[in-house]
Order: sequence, then structure tokens, then C-alpha cells
Amino acid sequence: MKFRRSSRLVDLTNYLLHHPHSLVPLTYFSEKYQSAKSSISEDLTIVKETFEQHGIGTLQTVPGAAGGVKFIPQVKLSEAKQFIDELCELIEKPERLLPGGYLYLTDIMGDPSIVNRMGRLFATAFSDRKIDVVMTVATKGIPLAYAVAGQLDVPVVIVRKDSKVTEGSTVSINYVSGSSKRIQTMLLAKRSLKEGSNVLIIDDFMKAGGTINGMISLLEEFRAKVAGIGVLVETEGVEERLVDEYISLVKLTDVDVRERNIQVMQGTYFQLVKDKDKEIGED
Amino acid sequence: MKFRRSSRLVDLTNYLLHHPHSLVPLTYFSEKYQSAKSSISEDLTIVKETFEQHGIGTLQTVPGAAGGVKFIPQVKLSEAKQFIDELCELIEKPERLLPGGYLYLTDIMGDPSIVNRMGRLFATAFSDRKIDVVMTVATKGIPLAYAVAGQLDVPVVIVRKDSKVTEGSTVSINYVSGSSKRIQTMLLAKRSLKEGSNVLIIDDFMKAGGTINGMISLLEEFRAKVAGIGVLVETEGVEERLVDEYISLVKLTDVDVRERNIQVMQGTYFQLVKDKDKEIGED
Repeated sequence: MKFRRSSRLVDLTNYLLHHPHSLVPLTYFSEKYQSAKSSISEDLTIVKETFEQHGIGTLQTVPGAAGGVKFIPQVKLSEAKQFIDELCELIEKPERLLPGGYLYLTDIMGDPSIVNRMGRLFATAFSDRKIDVVMTVATKGIPLAYAVAGQLDVPVVIVRKDSKVTEGSTVSINYVSGSSKRIQTMLLAKRSLKEGSNVLIIDDFMKAGGTINGMISLLEEFRAKVAGIGVLVETEGVEERLVDEYISLVKLTDVDVRERNIQVMQGTYFQLVKDKDKEIGED
Repeated sequence: MKFRRSSRLVDLTNYLLHHPHSLVPLTYFSEKYQSAKSSISEDLTIVKETFEQHGIGTLQTVPGAAGGVKFIPQVKLSEAKQFIDELCELIEKPERLLPGGYLYLTDIMGDPSIVNRMGRLFATAFSDRKIDVVMTVATKGIPLAYAVAGQLDVPVVIVRKDSKVTEGSTVSINYVSGSSKRIQTMLLAKRSLKEGSNVLIIDDFMKAGGTINGMISLLEEFRAKVAGIGVLVETEGVEERLVDEYISLVKLTDVDVRERNIQVMQGTYFQLVKDKDKEIGED
């Protein structure tokens, strides 16, 4: 049975959206739709133009026998700005203040559509790095880590702070929590990370960076490399920041518990992503 | 600027896939694409046919002034069978056996594309129930809970077994772990669940059902209702199962640590989903 173009476009779009960063040979589609490769190429041109026009992403075409097409999710700079501004507005509501100066972010991190949009932003920022796996620490960073990993088509590994979990033998390290200065332990199942992996570290919150430094030390034990660091919220004003190179969406500039005032601004996202966006054209 | 049909179909597909279970007025699309409602209706007919033909889902049209179109993710029975068979094969590998008879599932649960497929299965099974929120318990069930919630367009709430997490005031209950018979505590942030909510409970593993019973007790404290229960793996042969009505994808029928033998079979999924599938037609 042959498929009409209109039907092919709908299914092609669905397939590509579910297989980001995967190289798909054109023969896969021409067999699936019983259509000539030339027709599939025309379909892909339409998909590419629409994806770029609507800020969904782009298609990369790899020529040759081992070639094919790859969908790269790319959020436009204008959309990223709007989304981060929305996030800032959400986060600076005074009712988020918890005792101890903590912020209640459970509702934001509990909304899959918001978390998936965050994931697309990080996937945009790190789209041209070589990444084999996304790492996070239990528990609050997990949804964001999956959202990023899903858009990069890589697995997630989860570092634990307790050893009650049954995952076989583990590698553990001690680290100093940056803000409380206490010594803590974190561990990772031996089986879960291959030696030499390129690892993107994702977390929800970074104060002085102690937890992220702990993850970096843990990676050394696995002879793995840090391919990038992304956090949702960073705090400003910590005397010594332990981690230097990272991308944050939101920066917490001031939390005044007495006055019930929270001040936030854009994080470091646009410092890295600015140039990349020009390639796919801003509207 | 007017949009051509081919371009509309691509963007429509992307929009609907990212907004499952949301009612979108036709005027939204006719304004976005500067096209007549009649053209949009034709587009949606093509999308609906293709979605149904390829087992992506279906579109429900709600007529009238407050009407619109709603994308309902629906996995075909044949695809669900194939996927669950693949899962069974993956899980019964003897190298998954850990000391104590536990199973190593970290690699499976660490793969976002597998977890998202699981999510679509549960979203299919529970697609006609009234669900306001998905609940799970930290840590291993979290990715699956988000995958399900994302397909149902509802938020996730996460029950904790420790109180170290900073989410403000909490409600806690004691429960008896079904397999170890020990008394444990679980807690949920007060703010995170509204009274009267319809809650879908999702978890990765169910032995005797103690943890899930704990979550049900916790729901009573919030005057919330159980809208459904879904688990990835259930074990068979426990003398008294505490939870009765649930959907599982995989059933563990035997784990023999000495012989290094794991036996699994399909869970209860097809008992509920069988009839529903006939509505959208099997190929």
C-alpha cells in the first residue's frame, strides 16, 4: 500500500519527534511508506522548513550509503527568552518561601509540560556536544534529567545519597556540601556507567556547587568525562563557587525571608546559546 | 501569511503530540495558520486517519462553541503485545539477578525511550478515567510516573520515605511493608495535592503491595480518590496481595537465585485494554 504525501508528513513528523538525535536512513522511510526516495526527500524538506519556521528544531542530512536524516530539537532564542521570563515570574512569588529560606518548587517540577520545555532548552544548549549519558542526583533533579536525556536520545544514571537502594555493587565518594560544609556520601551503581563515557550533569538547584562537584569526583572514579553541566536554578552571592562552567536557566539573586521577597533573573543560558540560534534564523 | 496544507500538517502534528488530552479550539489553529476553519477540519481529518492507522492515537472532536479537538494517545494492542514481549525478554536475563533475589532494572528504567513507551501504554489503559494527578513514591517510580503524566497532561506528586526534603509542611502516615512486615513512614507535602483529587498511582515494582497500600492511606488523609493503579513489574506467589485492582505490564512468576533463573510473563495489562482497542480498529 502506498501512502499519500499528507499522511506521510504526519507520520514522519511523529517518528522524528520521537527519535531526536538519531540517524534514520532514508530507506527506512521509503520502505515504511512504499515510496520513492525522491518523494521522501521532498517530504523531509517540507518537514525541515516547518520545523525551523516554528522553532521546533532542524533536520540534518548526512549523505552517502551510511547516511540519513537526524532531527535536532532547537528552541528559538525568542521562545527561550519568553519561557525563562515566565519561569522567573513563577519563581519569584513570595508564597514560595519556606522556613530556612528554601523555595517551594514542587509544583513547577511536578508539571511534565514545563519540565519538558526545560528539557528542550538544555537539549538545544548542548546539542553539538558529544554526550553519552545524563547524570543527576536523587531526587528532585530526576524529572529534568529525563526530559533532557529524552531530547538527546541518551540514557540517565541516578546518583544516590543513601545506600538503601538495590542496584548491586556501588562506587561511593565523600564530598563536602558547599553550603553546609558537612561531609556527605554519594554513590552510583557500578554497572550503570561505562568507563570513558561523556556525561552531561543535570540538577534542579545549585548553591555553592558542592553536590555537582561531588558528581564530578564520582565521574573520575569511573574515568568518565564531564560533557556539560546544566541547572535549573542557581543562587548568586555565594563567596566561592566551586563549579565554573555551567548553564542555568534562572538565577536567584536575593531571598529575603523577613520581607518575603524573592528576586530572580535570567541565568547563564543566553551566554552560550546566543550564537547558535543565528544559524537557524530568528524571526 | 498563509500556511500551506503540508506545512500545517507538520506543525499541527507537533502541536497535538505535545498537548495530549487537551481540548484545543479550532479557532486556535485557524488563527495560527491564517486559514479557514473548513481547511483546518480537513487537516484534522488527515491527522486523525494517520494517527489511527499508525497506532499513534486518535482525535476526539467536541462540537459547539466551547468545542475543539483533543488528541488521545492510544497504543494499538498489537504494538503493546510486541513491546511487553520485548520487556519480558529484557527482564528475564539471568545477569539481572542481584544478591537477595532483587532484579537489576536500572538500565531499563534509565532509558527514556523505553520509559516513554511504557508511559504511552499506561496512558492508553487509563485514557477514559478522570485523572487529576499521577502519584508515585521516590525514587525508582519517578521516571515512569512522569512518562504517564506527560501523556495524560496532568501533574505528578512524589511521596517521600524520608523527611529531609524541603517542601514545607507534610502529612505523614505509617504503613506496613507487605514483604518485610516492618513499619515504615511515608509523607507528602501538604501543598502538593488538592482535596478531592482523582489520583492515578504509578510505581515500578509491586511485591505484596504494601507501598501502594501506604499511598492509598495517604490519599485518604487528603480526601483524594484512587483513579487507578499501574505498576511496571508485579511479583506472583505472595500469599496475600494487599492491592486488588491494578494494571501491570510484566509479572515475575519465579526468581531462582541458585539456578540463576528468572521467569516472567505478561502482566494484567491486556485484561483491561482488550476491549478498548477494538474501537480504534486492529490491523
